Amino acid sequence: MTTLNHHLVFNDQGLIPAIVQQEGTREVLMLAWMDEEAIRRTLSEGRVTYWSRSRGEYWRKGDTSGHVQHLISMSTDCDRDTLLVTVNQVGAACHTGTHTCFDGRELSEISEIAETSTTA
Amino acid sequence: MTTLNHHLVFNDQGLIPAIVQQEGTREVLMLAWMDEEAIRRTLSEGRVTYWSRSRGEYWRKGDTSGHVQHLISMSTDCDRDTLLVTVNQVGAACHTGTHTCFDGRELSEISEIAETSTTA
Repeated sequence: MTTLNHHLVFNDQGLIPAIVQQEGTREVLMLAWMDEEAIRRTLSEGRVTYWSRSRGEYWRKGDTSGHVQHLISMSTDCDRDTLLVTVNQVGAACHTGTHTCFDGRELSEISEIAETSTTA
Repeated sequence: MTTLNHHLVFNDQGLIPAIVQQEGTREVLMLAWMDEEAIRRTLSEGRVTYWSRSRGEYWRKGDTSGHVQHLISMSTDCDRDTLLVTVNQVGAACHTGTHTCFDGRELSEISEIAETSTTA
């Protein structure tokens, strides 16, 4: 585990989860991951930037889609191992086109979660 | 990586991050982790239950502190690797006594994040 000045705590991949929330409406838009450099870019540019685990590269939200996130503020939690990023979201937050990544995906039944488990 | 019925995606420790949000005010209270059994208990009991990574045991929020979380709803995101749990929080969400785990912990300066990095 890597610790930085002021004890921000990253996981063993050097990443910290970032919860992204729309200012005003307080909708939770998405969760993504940042490393130290992504945090630095986000704070210095005011454009929210993540580390894409699937692509293995920095991902400045909206560069491709136009769905930019303008930084309002960034906080850590009590354990300093999670970030809460307040943004102004341009357009849809989710790459599927829904307003947030959680829209219309409610789990109401236990059977929806896990009946059979398989290891991939 | 373990996948379950309906493709809920857990990390290599069998865990999925859960963002916890207060109904109504939409404050983000905390982020914690669940495994399949914690999700099942949460849905069946209506009391939000996590897997405590530090203690290595199930943690039904409020059993010690009285600061219970009553489940309102649970959703997954587009990738099915994050949960958004809407709750009614009794008392303070944070073990430090603050209302949310993010209260008063804003990062405003890049120098607050990382000046020197050390590996623990």
